[in-house]
Amino acid sequence: MDILIIGSVAYDTIETPFGKVDDALGGSGTYFSLAASYFTKPKILAVVGEDFKDSHLSMLEQKGVDVSAIKKTEGKTFRWGGKYGFDLNNRETLFTELNVFENFNPVLPDNFKTCQYLFLGNIHPALQNKVLQQAQGAKFVGLDSMNLWIENSRQELLEVLKRVNIFIINDSECRELSQEYNLFKAANKILGMMDEKKDPALIIKQGEFGLFLFKGGKTFHLPAFPLENVFDPTGAGDSFAGGFMGFLAKTGDHSWENLKRASVAGSIMASFCVEQMGAKALEEISQEEIANRFSQFKQLTHFEI
Amino acid sequence: MDILIIGSVAYDTIETPFGKVDDALGGSGTYFSLAASYFTKPKILAVVGEDFKDSHLSMLEQKGVDVSAIKKTEGKTFRWGGKYGFDLNNRETLFTELNVFENFNPVLPDNFKTCQYLFLGNIHPALQNKVLQQAQGAKFVGLDSMNLWIENSRQELLEVLKRVNIFIINDSECRELSQEYNLFKAANKILGMMDEKKDPALIIKQGEFGLFLFKGGKTFHLPAFPLENVFDPTGAGDSFAGGFMGFLAKTGDHSWENLKRASVAGSIMASFCVEQMGAKALEEISQEEIANRFSQFKQLTHFEI
Repeated sequence: MDILIIGSVAYDTIETPFGKVDDALGGSGTYFSLAASYFTKPKILAVVGEDFKDSHLSMLEQKGVDVSAIKKTEGKTFRWGGKYGFDLNNRETLFTELNVFENFNPVLPDNFKTCQYLFLGNIHPALQNKVLQQAQGAKFVGLDSMNLWIENSRQELLEVLKRVNIFIINDSECRELSQEYNLFKAANKILGMMDEKKDPALIIKQGEFGLFLFKGGKTFHLPAFPLENVFDPTGAGDSFAGGFMGFLAKTGDHSWENLKRASVAGSIMASFCVEQMGAKALEEISQEEIANRFSQFKQLTHFEI
Repeated sequence: MDILIIGSVAYDTIETPFGKVDDALGGSGTYFSLAASYFTKPKILAVVGEDFKDSHLSMLEQKGVDVSAIKKTEGKTFRWGGKYGFDLNNRETLFTELNVFENFNPVLPDNFKTCQYLFLGNIHPALQNKVLQQAQGAKFVGLDSMNLWIENSRQELLEVLKRVNIFIINDSECRELSQEYNLFKAANKILGMMDEKKDPALIIKQGEFGLFLFKGGKTFHLPAFPLENVFDPTGAGDSFAGGFMGFLAKTGDHSWENLKRASVAGSIMASFCVEQMGAKALEEISQEEIANRFSQFKQLTHFEI
């Protein structure tokens, strides 16, 4: 089934102890779309500047991403620069230049309004709400957010939270939003902020320590895929969301068992993402490699009583 | 089958945001024995002072622990004081009074030398080696250590490491011993320090983030049991080791599948341990509660492809 992502398409400058890239294709929308493209044909709504390269648009198109609503506008593409130390869990933002993203006003083309799956990438919750109002065909909606909106736009975030089916955040955001240190109490509080009629689910990401999935009193844990070489964690969260939502859109099944499988799919895409600088690794994965990591994940986590 | 533990029996003073206890029964040998007692009859080799309470000895005895080699000697029992903040992963040691433990010279009674399972608790590696030399019946040996010995007694630790079947440490110790930041590279290096003929296995504990088990190119991950209320993490690692080794001694099976099950058993005992201050929670667990957590762990981690 169709999936629509609203997020950023950007040029990133990233430095890790293992390498450096300048103006590499990045942004939450890019990572999400590339990861989702292995399961379905994602549509992306975003804005870029005049400097955005055609070669990047055609690469996305070749991966099956619908780029017709990536609007090229006067000015420069959104740019972000970050630096990681050996502890790849912590990063320093060196600069953020919003550029054309500053006045982004998301308007959905008619053929995007019927998408059944929608992912609201990490933008201001007021904009997320605006997209939701237009996406009248959306039956299953995923939401990302960040500490900035939790702190500065709490009410608007709580509003959008009531209108989605799954909320995907990291542990510190979860603690901040719920004002609860214990992760399991925090999860219950956040599920309580969502709309029961939406059969709400919550994913708490913990970086190299994996994730928890919660829904209807059930809990599932998945570790991160074990990797001996991690080059760049940028985009891992968006790749997770892309794999997760893409898998759901492909299968059209929102059962507990399938949400678990989808979180494995998401973790697999995140594991490929971090093995190269930027989003490069997401351009060339085979279905066989994905299937192999599914099996390896099972061997990693299963035991018989 | 029989299991022998060498470790400390101590009085702990512990402060957490949730409570405080003074002179509570503690020490690695205590936590290990109590946890192991749910699977087998552990024998413990330790030393205590004249102030050690008979009621504590009889409690251990009632749990099926062989206390005949807990030697009461002139002086005071080993005392430790520690304090935790809300992040229960980090603690501050307030005091360590070795007392009678300072001159502990572990001599095994004859009926202890035939034990088939042996766990070398966290004492100086030279003492661990000395115990190993006496434990001639030991067929499966587990080892604990700490940063102090890694830094100050590396050669002696490497010697004892070559003589054991499983090494149980935490992630920071693993990184320090291997001089390798990536956990999976570190695990391979440490397994390389062990004796291949011993079919060596390694467990890396990560506190609230669970553990990894490694052996013969295979990797298993288990999260920590989800708990809404953690009161005191003291002794969690020793309770894990006790449950793990106790389960192996009960089943007499060192296969990969059974090592995984044993690590579940260990994690279950650790999860009970942290739910009360000190070692109190380990005194009164039912087999039914243990079986329930086995099932819950399976639900928490399993998915079907």
